[in-house]
Amino acid sequence: MNSEAWSLASKFIPESYVRQSENACKNRENIIRQLLQHRKLPEIGWDNVSVETFLYQLSGMDSNNYRGNCGAGEREARFASELVRRRHYYFGHGIGRSGDLTEPQPKAAGSSLMYKLTNCLFQDLIKFMGIGAPHECIVVPVATGMALVLSMLSLRNILPSAKYVVWSRIDQKSCFKSILSAGFIPIVINTVKVGDQLQTDINLMEEKIKEVDKKNILCIMSTTACFAPRACDNIEEIALLCKKYDIPHIINNAYGLQSKVIMKRIQKAQMKGRVDVFVQSTDKNIMVPVGGAVIAAFNIGLLREISKTYPGRASSSPIIDSFITLLQLGKNGYQDLVTNRDKLYAYLKKELTTVAEKFGETLLSTPDNPISFAVTLCTIPTEDLTKLGSMLFWRNISGTRVVTTLETKTIEGHTFNGWGSHSESLKLPYLTAAASIGVQKDEIDAFIKKLNKVFLELQKKQR
Amino acid sequence: MNSEAWSLASKFIPESYVRQSENACKNRENIIRQLLQHRKLPEIGWDNVSVETFLYQLSGMDSNNYRGNCGAGEREARFASELVRRRHYYFGHGIGRSGDLTEPQPKAAGSSLMYKLTNCLFQDLIKFMGIGAPHECIVVPVATGMALVLSMLSLRNILPSAKYVVWSRIDQKSCFKSILSAGFIPIVINTVKVGDQLQTDINLMEEKIKEVDKKNILCIMSTTACFAPRACDNIEEIALLCKKYDIPHIINNAYGLQSKVIMKRIQKAQMKGRVDVFVQSTDKNIMVPVGGAVIAAFNIGLLREISKTYPGRASSSPIIDSFITLLQLGKNGYQDLVTNRDKLYAYLKKELTTVAEKFGETLLSTPDNPISFAVTLCTIPTEDLTKLGSMLFWRNISGTRVVTTLETKTIEGHTFNGWGSHSESLKLPYLTAAASIGVQKDEIDAFIKKLNKVFLELQKKQR
Amino acid sequence: MNSEAWSLASKFIPESYVRQSENACKNRENIIRQLLQHRKLPEIGWDNVSVETFLYQLSGMDSNNYRGNCGAGEREARFASELVRRRHYYFGHGIGRSGDLTEPQPKAAGSSLMYKLTNCLFQDLIKFMGIGAPHECIVVPVATGMALVLSMLSLRNILPSAKYVVWSRIDQKSCFKSILSAGFIPIVINTVKVGDQLQTDINLMEEKIKEVDKKNILCIMSTTACFAPRACDNIEEIALLCKKYDIPHIINNAYGLQSKVIMKRIQKAQMKGRVDVFVQSTDKNIMVPVGGAVIAAFNIGLLREISKTYPGRASSSPIIDSFITLLQLGKNGYQDLVTNRDKLYAYLKKELTTVAEKFGETLLSTPDNPISFAVTLCTIPTEDLTKLGSMLFWRNISGTRVVTTLETKTIEGHTFNGWGSHSESLKLPYLTAAASIGVQKDEIDAFIKKLNKVFLELQKKQR
Amino acid sequence: MNSEAWSLASKFIPESYVRQSENACKNRENIIRQLLQHRKLPEIGWDNVSVETFLYQLSGMDSNNYRGNCGAGEREARFASELVRRRHYYFGHGIGRSGDLTEPQPKAAGSSLMYKLTNCLFQDLIKFMGIGAPHECIVVPVATGMALVLSMLSLRNILPSAKYVVWSRIDQKSCFKSILSAGFIPIVINTVKVGDQLQTDINLMEEKIKEVDKKNILCIMSTTACFAPRACDNIEEIALLCKKYDIPHIINNAYGLQSKVIMKRIQKAQMKGRVDVFVQSTDKNIMVPVGGAVIAAFNIGLLREISKTYPGRASSSPIIDSFITLLQLGKNGYQDLVTNRDKLYAYLKKELTTVAEKFGETLLSTPDNPISFAVTLCTIPTEDLTKLGSMLFWRNISGTRVVTTLETKTIEGHTFNGWGSHSESLKLPYLTAAASIGVQKDEIDAFIKKLNKVFLELQKKQR
Repeated sequence: MNSEAWSLASKFIPESYVRQSENACKNRENIIRQLLQHRKLPEIGWDNVSVETFLYQLSGMDSNNYRGNCGAGEREARFASELVRRRHYYFGHGIGRSGDLTEPQPKAAGSSLMYKLTNCLFQDLIKFMGIGAPHECIVVPVATGMALVLSMLSLRNILPSAKYVVWSRIDQKSCFKSILSAGFIPIVINTVKVGDQLQTDINLMEEKIKEVDKKNILCIMSTTACFAPRACDNIEEIALLCKKYDIPHIINNAYGLQSKVIMKRIQKAQMKGRVDVFVQSTDKNIMVPVGGAVIAAFNIGLLREISKTYPGRASSSPIIDSFITLLQLGKNGYQDLVTNRDKLYAYLKKELTTVAEKFGETLLSTPDNPISFAVTLCTIPTEDLTKLGSMLFWRNISGTRVVTTLETKTIEGHTFNGWGSHSESLKLPYLTAAASIGVQKDEIDAFIKKLNKVFLELQKKQR
Repeated sequence: MNSEAWSLASKFIPESYVRQSENACKNRENIIRQLLQHRKLPEIGWDNVSVETFLYQLSGMDSNNYRGNCGAGEREARFASELVRRRHYYFGHGIGRSGDLTEPQPKAAGSSLMYKLTNCLFQDLIKFMGIGAPHECIVVPVATGMALVLSMLSLRNILPSAKYVVWSRIDQKSCFKSILSAGFIPIVINTVKVGDQLQTDINLMEEKIKEVDKKNILCIMSTTACFAPRACDNIEEIALLCKKYDIPHIINNAYGLQSKVIMKRIQKAQMKGRVDVFVQSTDKNIMVPVGGAVIAAFNIGLLREISKTYPGRASSSPIIDSFITLLQLGKNGYQDLVTNRDKLYAYLKKELTTVAEKFGETLLSTPDNPISFAVTLCTIPTEDLTKLGSMLFWRNISGTRVVTTLETKTIEGHTFNGWGSHSESLKLPYLTAAASIGVQKDEIDAFIKKLNKVFLELQKKQR
Repeated sequence: MNSEAWSLASKFIPESYVRQSENACKNRENIIRQLLQHRKLPEIGWDNVSVETFLYQLSGMDSNNYRGNCGAGEREARFASELVRRRHYYFGHGIGRSGDLTEPQPKAAGSSLMYKLTNCLFQDLIKFMGIGAPHECIVVPVATGMALVLSMLSLRNILPSAKYVVWSRIDQKSCFKSILSAGFIPIVINTVKVGDQLQTDINLMEEKIKEVDKKNILCIMSTTACFAPRACDNIEEIALLCKKYDIPHIINNAYGLQSKVIMKRIQKAQMKGRVDVFVQSTDKNIMVPVGGAVIAAFNIGLLREISKTYPGRASSSPIIDSFITLLQLGKNGYQDLVTNRDKLYAYLKKELTTVAEKFGETLLSTPDNPISFAVTLCTIPTEDLTKLGSMLFWRNISGTRVVTTLETKTIEGHTFNGWGSHSESLKLPYLTAAASIGVQKDEIDAFIKKLNKVFLELQKKQR
Repeated sequence: MNSEAWSLASKFIPESYVRQSENACKNRENIIRQLLQHRKLPEIGWDNVSVETFLYQLSGMDSNNYRGNCGAGEREARFASELVRRRHYYFGHGIGRSGDLTEPQPKAAGSSLMYKLTNCLFQDLIKFMGIGAPHECIVVPVATGMALVLSMLSLRNILPSAKYVVWSRIDQKSCFKSILSAGFIPIVINTVKVGDQLQTDINLMEEKIKEVDKKNILCIMSTTACFAPRACDNIEEIALLCKKYDIPHIINNAYGLQSKVIMKRIQKAQMKGRVDVFVQSTDKNIMVPVGGAVIAAFNIGLLREISKTYPGRASSSPIIDSFITLLQLGKNGYQDLVTNRDKLYAYLKKELTTVAEKFGETLLSTPDNPISFAVTLCTIPTEDLTKLGSMLFWRNISGTRVVTTLETKTIEGHTFNGWGSHSESLKLPYLTAAASIGVQKDEIDAFIKKLNKVFLELQKKQR
């Protein structure tokens, strides 16, 4: 409503009511203005009305929603289905322009603005979580694995002759496949067991670098968040290697953004050595549906290259999700989630310890993994290990994994012994579980209860 | 409602009402059963209640929506925002599994099923539009350019030493960039002018193949739908070349699925020669938001490879959009859209001819472009050409393009003279416009009216 | 977005895109301004983005949606369910204030404004449909029957000693019950058969008025839209009686708003005689869910009284529905619906005539019923009449009625012979059907086809 | 999905995933079956997917959503607007049938079933809140005031010659107006001050009954929940009077359902004496939008009469809201709300006491009002009292009221001295505030903070 409309309104309802409403609306306009001005995650999350009003204003800026727009092109953001139109808040043009994700799209000023703002919100969230050093980021509408591919494809433009990616082993298939998909040869650095924990084999890494010659290496890829007993990679030392040998450093930080501990380690790694980009999942960190990743970079030039590598426009759907979620959460909302997760991480640790001890198992000591735990399964006969997994699955426990350490997997010619354990050296079966963002106490309670039952049942059976 | 519930219902309302409702519900269950059984696009589009009921049933099959599910992993499809949750119909797990897009996801049976069904629906739509020969397809949650990248990255696994992509020039940036992003060197084959039309230079193409040696060539990339006066590539002849030299053939069929003429040419090309995959945009062909592409293949092995190339899970949002839209449209709905577009294509031709003649311009004769038109701009002084574009933009005409044929553009070291005209040989300015799927008669009328005004204004100014 | 926000936007996206978007938004603001200024149904229906944006702006004006609102009362428009909150566009306060429906509610300026605007939209629609004479109207969130009760209760304040309501018989239960519920005694005037049609018995009506003495009569209640063969009441003559005897005249115009023929008769009745209020259903006339009625009045004083009779606030849900629908339709949209109905009314007549003749039945001639038809059922044995109805019901034909003219019904002591036929004089069974607003040609085709089958089946059985 | 569909599903995805999903779906079907069987509020609130799936199943039972339905009547639940259709979950037929709200509607089996279930849910909620004695209830789609009108209109059928309603004064306009709208003459019984509290004047009430003769009295209307310092009426004593004189007793229990204290008093009143119906608001008690009321009755015959008094169908929108909300809340959810309100009631009391004492005011002692408080405003000059109210209003405090006790209001000939104070005897200005269901601690904190400021400002000004 423009000022004329406001004054006309008082011909319908009393002036004082109109004034108070206008105030409330100005308040709402004001938080939009602040967002555009300061480019920060709001201190206090927005209410739904503000979020949805703003979304409609933004999509109203896209040409497909102009009253009287005539589409004479081949891509006019028309909708065949009203259900689809509404669920996208009338956004249809996607983001980006042929050849650059971050370039504003003339037909879609609103989508373009939303995209830029979402990038700013994430930048501020990353800062809030511990990275004060200058950095930039872009959200890409592909999940983490594909975001890593994009990063590597972009690096190729800078290092066209490089063939290898040095990779500290993490048994998560999409991470490994991202190297192959991008067309590079992985040099696998198995992790080493130190205490209960699996850690980066820095020495072997350096050896390999020397062996293949640094100029043939596209980058080193390290991983932070992972399943215990693997620890967060020693990214500070890796960063030093990268600096020493002038090799780009990509950090697969898939679900590390939720942990201030991890984020501060990334900052420290950059301070001491070299970190080019760190990639995080949107779904794993801010609880949106699968489908987006945040590519953050200290190396701004590389980030520009990545945004140019994505050919053509892309789905704005993951952007809309992130935009809504970050505005609704605000700093206070995200802090609440983080605080709660920290508490429940400790709680899960306590509960798992109790179960483990009760059944003669051990909770492995993994101080460098702030999210996940591993409990040994020594008392369960090998032949029952799969059964245990399936018993949990049938009891609606999702996300735990039973690792036998006996499996061997071959992916496109690369063989991994002890698949699932990130290492060749681990020789005991275990179960992993995680306390990730958004987890609820009653979920943990139900999980522990069911785990107890399953252990009991399997041990009873043995007797 | 199960059978027990139905019989309990008749304690609340009369038996005969319950029976009739149950019939209606069975009817609804029946169309779901038929879909699962026949895997075909429905003859008659589904009503909204059926579509939404089915969506909720499918998302109810995903573990994040199980009553009493306990998430103990790092990715549990939690939602921070209710707005986001609802707009995705409670789907959160995306599609695919680390390392394969089409692999069912244990945590997300419903999403997995929806994905498989969407692929079937598209396969049937492709058949309906003219391709009776055996083929398969997958929807990928990336737009056309990135889908082409994926296709090329996958081909690399088969032809690891190939370096070149032979490309019949089309001045659409994301298409060209897809080659660069995938890490290949494009061999640009300028189009040649035949009559008013720009056609594939088959001879030059064959020469170049011989020149660089076929074993260094990853594929030939041809394009069907494009802006006039460029014609659809001579894909039949290109297919013959591909067969002769055993080179993979990728067709960029971005918005060709809406045209039976083009689809039949693809079928013919495959019959006579070789077509491996043909890639189409979901947004341009079935009017969903930007963000998806359908990779269809006669070469099923390559399609499997492509689905494995995508590392990790991916957004299911473009899948949901396509699924909803195809169910709602059905064959009858899509045929209506196609018929209507055909009519309006003829109408736009007639109207543009009238305007052109009135102002001393010509509608170029482009019989091999079934979607777009080009009108010369000979009477407009060069310095006013940009103005003309901007005048249309300000009058809310989107999608037309003014091509001066005087521009030169350099993309990562590759220089294109006459950028925008797909050719070096065209030396006259022109304006393009298209009648694409979903266009409305009143849009065309408004466009023609405004075009008239703009011409008048610019010619008046000259006098 | 305020002006500051717009200028900040151009730090994110190019100035020219911002300007064009701002124009588009101003265009949108402008139609809102026009609505507030002219208080008219838009000439051209609004697009969804405009409608939803405006709804959010309006609900943003309600105190429950103020950022930082503190509710310290007993009714604060809180929501327990997000699903409910969203489906009401965040409106929670209802409409009205204790003791007056149209009084603005201080806590809900937006709801109050929406309500006033909806009343204006209906007023303009009534004018558009043929009533140029000065009138006002209010939407009440109760269906037609209850709206009639409210009207009668309000009249009692003016005529406290009146006991009777003179009522031209229409066999629609809720209409008759409205008189009883309001606490009055109905004086039933059976209709008389003139040709095939059942018409108002004006003479009997006047006799009865004289008999009970006009000062004991609260009002005469006439009916326009009804099932054939009953005709629209002779409202012009009734209006003359009302004028002559100074008796209020309430017209039950439940689904008459969709017919210009009926609306013009109401206007004429008022010109010649006396019409106080005419009541129409929102669902029957503008295709919203059941639950609202429009009470329109030439007698503005009585209308004020009615709005004050409703004690307390009321649901705004029917208001929201009407508001959305009228904005989306606009005059052009409503005219399209009306034109289409007129065509299909003629079409249904033609088709029913054909069926009737084929099976030896007659389509009754009911020129004064512009919506409904009656087909005789003389060839069907009495014992099969119910079966016929049920056969149609089971074939998903809804809305037809079989009237045997043999039934007798007693409602709270009042006995109606020939229940269903509005008369005691009609002695032939028949089937009614209607072409009401929004009906589709394919519905009529399916109905006729099934009717044919049912006739065939029943006649076959007889042989 | 029927069993055939489930087995077909395993041709798309692995059998074990299908089985687990089917289990999850059966679980969902099971809670529906339980609801139909036990007719109880669920112990644990339903998740959104279950609620929405069930809603779509129910609306799929209504004829307007049958695939292939042909509407040949005048009311076919068509929708002109997709926005409207969706927000009502495709329900369009409303509830009830001409002449009876609770009669199943043949065209709308799903709506009818939903309505019956909603009535059951409320019945169980009422039991849960303290009324174990046999009772029934119906939800009516009108707010409390109109529900009281309906109740009185229905009583008239039983007591046709009664003219008076004896009413313990409560200065809430819609309550008083309901008597007038129903066409009765109120006999106002002013409350009496006992301590700080205003209580029912039982003696005066009995005197008046004797005075006008019990057979002229339609009912006594008492009120439970109200603004302090008025206390909940002495409903036990009133019930005894009703029993003694055989007068119906209607309790206006607008927001009393949220308080177990009040509900138990109603039960006790019925045990000792006579209570016919007690009416509660849906919005005030279960936090849905304004527009519904629950009429509960110990006098089942009267309840039947009320449901028959409503002429015609009615909006199902308030029913949908209540249905969704009660399923989502369940007993656990409602208990949480109740517990929380009880805590915050105590908290508000403490905080108000502190503010009052700080500024030389008193929190009145009103032990028989479990929801609201009154703080004296003795230190504020009379001329500033309105200002105080407006200062709070401008600071977004909604729901508090400043009562000067000096106002006189005349409603349709009835004069109330000390309007707002429910009494003629109270002679001190005060401010009321309430802790009603859904109130949040931060709302109270903000309110108290702002109240402090306002007091400070006004007292500063005096000096």
